[in-house]
Amino acid sequence: MTTTETDETSEAAEAAEAGLSAPAPHSPQGPHGYSSHKDAHLKRLRRIEGQIRGLQRMVEEDVYCIDVLTQVSASTKGLQSFALQLLEEHLRHCVAAAAAEGGPEIDDKVAEATAAIARLLRT
Amino acid sequence: MTTTETDETSEAAEAAEAGLSAPAPHSPQGPHGYSSHKDAHLKRLRRIEGQIRGLQRMVEEDVYCIDVLTQVSASTKGLQSFALQLLEEHLRHCVAAAAAEGGPEIDDKVAEATAAIARLLRT
Amino acid sequence: MTTTETDETSEAAEAAEAGLSAPAPHSPQGPHGYSSHKDAHLKRLRRIEGQIRGLQRMVEEDVYCIDVLTQVSASTKGLQSFALQLLEEHLRHCVAAAAAEGGPEIDDKVAEATAAIARLLRT
Amino acid sequence: MTTTETDETSEAAEAAEAGLSAPAPHSPQGPHGYSSHKDAHLKRLRRIEGQIRGLQRMVEEDVYCIDVLTQVSASTKGLQSFALQLLEEHLRHCVAAAAAEGGPEIDDKVAEATAAIARLLRT
Repeated sequence: MTTTETDETSEAAEAAEAGLSAPAPHSPQGPHGYSSHKDAHLKRLRRIEGQIRGLQRMVEEDVYCIDVLTQVSASTKGLQSFALQLLEEHLRHCVAAAAAEGGPEIDDKVAEATAAIARLLRT
Repeated sequence: MTTTETDETSEAAEAAEAGLSAPAPHSPQGPHGYSSHKDAHLKRLRRIEGQIRGLQRMVEEDVYCIDVLTQVSASTKGLQSFALQLLEEHLRHCVAAAAAEGGPEIDDKVAEATAAIARLLRT
Repeated sequence: MTTTETDETSEAAEAAEAGLSAPAPHSPQGPHGYSSHKDAHLKRLRRIEGQIRGLQRMVEEDVYCIDVLTQVSASTKGLQSFALQLLEEHLRHCVAAAAAEGGPEIDDKVAEATAAIARLLRT
Repeated sequence: MTTTETDETSEAAEAAEAGLSAPAPHSPQGPHGYSSHKDAHLKRLRRIEGQIRGLQRMVEEDVYCIDVLTQVSASTKGLQSFALQLLEEHLRHCVAAAAAEGGPEIDDKVAEATAAIARLLRT
């Protein structure tokens, strides 16, 4: 293993990456539920991007296949954690808002969310 | 959807990316099975890296959650295709070589490969 | 392949199984969203149960490993379709009801649903 | 939760189920790698069958959706563990035998195994 990016939950990596982060964008609250966690999402995605670059280095350096696969699993897990966080915010804001409003829109919102979950499950 | 990177199998994206590729490294055949497909692997990983950057732009631009989730599914699918390709080469070269040699190493190799498959399945 | 249960979506299997079904239970509308689809759920679960019994026959008859694995994938897919259907009904009824009521319960409901989705994703 | 079958690894369930098991079939060593673990596989599949019947009872009794989903995750996990065990034996016996023999059959065997893994990953 030649990279230090495998451990997606490493506190050290997190701190290091936080130091490298661009200044927080002072965006106004956007239209979607996940906007309030934008910085956390971007930080997480930058870490996954680093893992993907780590994978490229591993392939270039002929790292043992099994170690490459371990890094792939870590990146996939990172993407799934991001997706679950996004989904939770979507259910809490968009879906709940449609339900609170009443009317037929809730059925569309639920069907749309379920289709997205099905896509996550089947990849 | 504000990016063009969602469609992991897009021929156009593939051609465009090929144009951007660094010159093929003239590495000698490395010790692992996947070395002979190194360029294809690097190209695939660069495309996934582009998808992860696309996700960051989507979050920054407050793209609708469900569209972000669709892009996550595409990236995860790309990572899984890469993992399956790597695994196939590993079985064909490393595991088969251990089997051809005879001796007890084959059991370790198979157990190691199965553990890697389990990690892929459980993420 | 010695069983006819592999194709989870086979119309013929569905018709055959419908013929074998116990009389529909005339249960009153239960407290949960999925109650109204109870018969469809039970039919689907009985088909999956048949697939699991088919797997036992395949193992007893030394059917080729890869064909057994194909049947496992079909059963897993059946279970996931059932889970997605249940989840959709849960979001539409339980989660939406909590949202319509207002109050803090919606957060618990969404967190609980997300945890269930995470468990499905990680198996 | 109205059933005791959720915990797929429960020692108690295992012991109970062992008591209910049919006498071990005295089958001769079959042609495939998994034959030597036939009894363990059948025991595991009978437990999964019990979980699927447990799911039917849960639906009939209007058990809370989230608890039903937890049982679905346990059953899916059981099926995946079975698949991984089978796959390991397949790699150790069938794939390794093709490799030891030499000749072109190994490529077909590896491609076939990889396709089976892909099917497991995508369900």
